[in-house]
Amino acid sequence: MSSATAGLALDPVLKRIDENLTDSLKRVFELVRMPSISTDPGYAADCRKAAEWLVAQLKGIGFDASVRDTPGHPMVVAHHEGAAADAPHVLFYGHYDVQPVDPIELWDTEPFQPAIKTGPDGAKIITGRGTADDKGQLMTFVEACRAYKEIHGGLPCKVTILFEGEEESGSPSLKPFLDANSEELKADFALVCDTSMWDANTPAISTGLRGLVGEEITIQAADRDLHSGYFGGAAANPIHILSKILADMHDADGKVTIPNFYEGVDETPKEILEQWENLGQTAEKFLGEIGLALPSGEKGRSVLELTWARPTAEVNGIIGGYTGEGFKTVIAAKASAKVSFRLVGKQDPAAIRENFREFVRSRIPADCTVSFHEHGGSPGIQLPYDSTVLQKAKDALSDEWPNPALMIGMGGSIPVVGDFQTMLGMDSVLVGFGLADDRIHSPNEKYALKSYHKGQRSWARILDALAAG
Amino acid sequence: MSSATAGLALDPVLKRIDENLTDSLKRVFELVRMPSISTDPGYAADCRKAAEWLVAQLKGIGFDASVRDTPGHPMVVAHHEGAAADAPHVLFYGHYDVQPVDPIELWDTEPFQPAIKTGPDGAKIITGRGTADDKGQLMTFVEACRAYKEIHGGLPCKVTILFEGEEESGSPSLKPFLDANSEELKADFALVCDTSMWDANTPAISTGLRGLVGEEITIQAADRDLHSGYFGGAAANPIHILSKILADMHDADGKVTIPNFYEGVDETPKEILEQWENLGQTAEKFLGEIGLALPSGEKGRSVLELTWARPTAEVNGIIGGYTGEGFKTVIAAKASAKVSFRLVGKQDPAAIRENFREFVRSRIPADCTVSFHEHGGSPGIQLPYDSTVLQKAKDALSDEWPNPALMIGMGGSIPVVGDFQTMLGMDSVLVGFGLADDRIHSPNEKYALKSYHKGQRSWARILDALAAG
Repeated sequence: MSSATAGLALDPVLKRIDENLTDSLKRVFELVRMPSISTDPGYAADCRKAAEWLVAQLKGIGFDASVRDTPGHPMVVAHHEGAAADAPHVLFYGHYDVQPVDPIELWDTEPFQPAIKTGPDGAKIITGRGTADDKGQLMTFVEACRAYKEIHGGLPCKVTILFEGEEESGSPSLKPFLDANSEELKADFALVCDTSMWDANTPAISTGLRGLVGEEITIQAADRDLHSGYFGGAAANPIHILSKILADMHDADGKVTIPNFYEGVDETPKEILEQWENLGQTAEKFLGEIGLALPSGEKGRSVLELTWARPTAEVNGIIGGYTGEGFKTVIAAKASAKVSFRLVGKQDPAAIRENFREFVRSRIPADCTVSFHEHGGSPGIQLPYDSTVLQKAKDALSDEWPNPALMIGMGGSIPVVGDFQTMLGMDSVLVGFGLADDRIHSPNEKYALKSYHKGQRSWARILDALAAG
Repeated sequence: MSSATAGLALDPVLKRIDENLTDSLKRVFELVRMPSISTDPGYAADCRKAAEWLVAQLKGIGFDASVRDTPGHPMVVAHHEGAAADAPHVLFYGHYDVQPVDPIELWDTEPFQPAIKTGPDGAKIITGRGTADDKGQLMTFVEACRAYKEIHGGLPCKVTILFEGEEESGSPSLKPFLDANSEELKADFALVCDTSMWDANTPAISTGLRGLVGEEITIQAADRDLHSGYFGGAAANPIHILSKILADMHDADGKVTIPNFYEGVDETPKEILEQWENLGQTAEKFLGEIGLALPSGEKGRSVLELTWARPTAEVNGIIGGYTGEGFKTVIAAKASAKVSFRLVGKQDPAAIRENFREFVRSRIPADCTVSFHEHGGSPGIQLPYDSTVLQKAKDALSDEWPNPALMIGMGGSIPVVGDFQTMLGMDSVLVGFGLADDRIHSPNEKYALKSYHKGQRSWARILDALAAG
């Protein structure tokens, strides 16, 4: 069952995790109650409160922990020595900030009043914004460390912890912080807990994940809002211009039409596609869970390939003109959209951004203007399948869960993984216990109680396996 | 100068209007201070207050006036006999409701705290929401009646007044009200004061005006907001679907592509186009005032033809996904747009609406849905150029203003004119004193003080001319 340890027996640690569960829930509830929405400046004080709370928790279990200011929301950095000098030094990363909660009226529970509920399938869940993304996840690691400390007075590996408070708002402070503190943060590899399981019984390690480029464009036509009776038919309508640009971004086959967009995108090897094929995922199942049925992206590709290995262009928000109750016959002065690109392979975020801007500029009438606002960028990541660290983590996960762990792709971006790679020369092991129906970024976010409990046990096993050398 | 009267001398009435100007400004200020925004239910009490204030004013000058309830905002109806039995009976129409004020931060003055300011050209202006559309305009008629009453104790014509409180929100109660009160409201013709002058020295009578169809469409894709990392590339994005539909509405030449859209649209006669050509309006002048330069509608037509005699499809508002500060990598569950069509000639509002809906439905993927919300509809109007009533009004206006009055087209819709025609068999004489730069429906709406003053004098002259038989 458990692997050979480097001196710190695993089984009593697992037992202590089980005994601590009720108290560990109280702790994660405290964290979830803080509305640490990083994208909205109105919640800055709550972000700091969450960081301070985490520092107090980590100090309480023997870490040398501190809140570290940035121009934005603060970082949490903590250090703990390992029991054996030859065990690896790991950097654990998570983020304490959360997404906004709108539309608030669609929540069945209070987003910042976490509770244990029973889900539709009878499984216990923890409800609340951030339970799955990423507060519940990062706490699985903290609680694993707590159990080690309580049983053995130490940790099997040397551990550095980095908790970020701006992951949901483009991580503006991350790179400068890594740059300024590279010596302190550099470890043998990173453990990143911000991903999902394959299903409720099957853990997964994400070996590839998509990058992200965020752009906001604002088109200005007339210098004021216009009456559509006086000016309609003669004056430029920025919503029309914007709609045309957004519609132009995809061709009839769902391919992105921005020039050179697919530069650096390799076709996924046939054998990998076949492995994914064997997972039994279908468009009906994948999309059926969210009330859809038809894949909408590039034609002729499976939903797993589309979401794990293909780049996208998505409009994440659009606004212009009168959007209140009733009707207003106005031609708006301006209209804007937030657009993001998911990147794979060697797509260059800077080139994608510039090509998109040129694509937009070329479609703006001579008497109108466009302005751009950058919202972060990071390349896609593909981790080496043959690393021994990955293999150890895979075996440890397979020991804990009913089904063996899978190596999968990831549709989402975790920019920090790219930054760890390029700035600290450090690979990341991506292990997380989210589930596809956790509704992260949506109303009614939840985290499975089983994920929270067995997640803690999984980290105890992984630390044990990594220390075994 | 003044025409022959039917017993009530005109000159002392004009003199009294001049003497009353300061007090008449106090009165219109009182009305503008009431935020009677009809499209927002939160202002219902203010709408009623405005109606009650108007009734008090009209009673004060001898009208038999009352507030008349509707399922929405109330109507004001008032009656006054004429001095001569053979003078015509006129129905005067205006509306006391106003547009919303957003974006409020773009106002230089408080929208509901009217003030006299000096405009950039040195002319005095009255600032505030509704000063031009339509409170200032309707008060020009009330003040003309006041002066007649004060000088002669009566009015030259029999006058019925109808003030509506839902003009800016699709006039849902108007047709039922006209239907239920047709006997009471029927007159020989209507005087409608909701239009503009050609320029600050040149009055105009609008003989054609465009109709309007308002539609709101909401596209629903997934049953919840989605994380664009997990689902991006596979799940339908309703903003993409909506953008495509809106982009599809016009072809590369600016023509509307909705099937049968141009059914009932006649080409404007060559001689009329030539008359308009001679007015000296250019795209540079017309659009230059609002910071634009290039006509954006159907190619190969002048801006006057585009705005007076051609139908349009315009998006007046669009919203979907995350539109707050920062960025949210969400794929929205739904997206919606408010779309309006300006109609001319014999275009049928019901057919346009149904053809548009079919156009939209045919572009909705099978696993997504669309819902429609109707926001009013009215056909375009073309008044007979050869009517003697129009001619009298034209002459009266030419007596008051530096330049002779013009007969022009009108880009905006005044649905009541169509309703008067179809339901009460009554033509309308469209006379108003707005100016192109009044910024109606926009921040910093204003009304020229000269419009307010000479508008009153114009109505006194028109009533005099009409009574002359």
